[in-house]
Amino acid sequence: MSNMHNPAIILVSPQMGENIGGAARAMSNFGLEDLKLINPRDGWPNNKPSESAAANSAGALDIMPPVEVFKNTADALKQYHTIYATTARPRDMRKPVMTARHAAQDIADKQSQGLKTAIMFGGERAGLTNDDVALAHIIITIPTNPDFSSLNLAQAVLLVANEIFQATHKAPETQTPLGGSAPVSHEELNELITRFETELDNHNFFRNPDMRPTMMRNIRNALTRANLTDQETRTFQGIISALIGNKVK
Amino acid sequence: MSNMHNPAIILVSPQMGENIGGAARAMSNFGLEDLKLINPRDGWPNNKPSESAAANSAGALDIMPPVEVFKNTADALKQYHTIYATTARPRDMRKPVMTARHAAQDIADKQSQGLKTAIMFGGERAGLTNDDVALAHIIITIPTNPDFSSLNLAQAVLLVANEIFQATHKAPETQTPLGGSAPVSHEELNELITRFETELDNHNFFRNPDMRPTMMRNIRNALTRANLTDQETRTFQGIISALIGNKVK
Repeated sequence: MSNMHNPAIILVSPQMGENIGGAARAMSNFGLEDLKLINPRDGWPNNKPSESAAANSAGALDIMPPVEVFKNTADALKQYHTIYATTARPRDMRKPVMTARHAAQDIADKQSQGLKTAIMFGGERAGLTNDDVALAHIIITIPTNPDFSSLNLAQAVLLVANEIFQATHKAPETQTPLGGSAPVSHEELNELITRFETELDNHNFFRNPDMRPTMMRNIRNALTRANLTDQETRTFQGIISALIGNKVK
Repeated sequence: MSNMHNPAIILVSPQMGENIGGAARAMSNFGLEDLKLINPRDGWPNNKPSESAAANSAGALDIMPPVEVFKNTADALKQYHTIYATTARPRDMRKPVMTARHAAQDIADKQSQGLKTAIMFGGERAGLTNDDVALAHIIITIPTNPDFSSLNLAQAVLLVANEIFQATHKAPETQTPLGGSAPVSHEELNELITRFETELDNHNFFRNPDMRPTMMRNIRNALTRANLTDQETRTFQGIISALIGNKVK
């Protein structure tokens, strides 16, 4: 997947290799490739991931472009036009604060106009410094349960990357696969319902004739709502035959 | 937070305590409380989490109601009205397949009507069996990068729980906090712009008089777009004073 329309993920002072690896895995899950580290606590020697980072990346670090490492945040941001800062706690700054979902749409809009965007995430202990947040145009927050709000670094990257993927890749909200069959035609469904009615008649099901139209309407509604395939319709025909004692055709 | 309107999370044959703990943490992050395990590989003795589960839950298992353990899936599902099955790979079943986002809205709609819902997640190795999926009314898939689609169990729970939280807790998409100041009034902003114009005149900034209206319009647009606070406006007044050599008031 091209990173033409995808933002950079910038981890500022990350501490644990596991989280760098987890962030890389989350990025790959959602088609992001541009990962930059600012002052990782344990270094990032020879551009090779630490063992825990590699294990937690589930192979993502092997297929991504090399991770870039910088000494300070401003250097890493040079090429980007719009910068986003993720923060858990409110900052006393006059700056737009967006939900991750709304920011993802904003990022998709900007990238589609050829603007480059980058999203900063702070380290595990204290998040981004106020100086880092001041570099950003927009603050991103992830709404959580106020009684239990702590997300770890890799989880925060996962949730933001997922929102960006959804903002840039529209999937059908609901699909119903046919499983190798075709939807039943109205004619075949009608034959099934008529068969039910005939055999129920034969077996004295409609004891109160006044209820017959209602009963048949209920049966029709249930079988219509089931959105049967042609195969399932034949199966029900076979079930009726079996129950009335005929050999299955 | 009440679990009145929240679905149950059902982990079927989970293997790693870390993932059970991670799922519990993700549930607490997004206000879910009803966690059930079917045949956890390493057991769930005395209703006490294993050490790795407790560590990865970041305290969530201590504040949640006790996790319930069942021998088979159908027993765990007894009280629920609508069952969802998360699957990564397509199943050859005629059953609606929803994105996590759309399913979250469906779950929120059903819970608000008093219907109880449950979401099944399969174990780490092979996901849900076809027999388990057949128990569900609706299949949930999480759209991912097709070239790197593997999500671990705790990550899948995190993403689904986040969608449910967003479907049930509407947050303002964008807010701009004032940081203890008030937005500048039009009058004060005008005074600043007029001051700019006067001092730029005094310093012979408008060399080409024809360009003056355009220059002033640009300055006005930039300062209007900045949505200044009253404090920031006073700061700019001080900057002008400093630059022209007056003492800051």
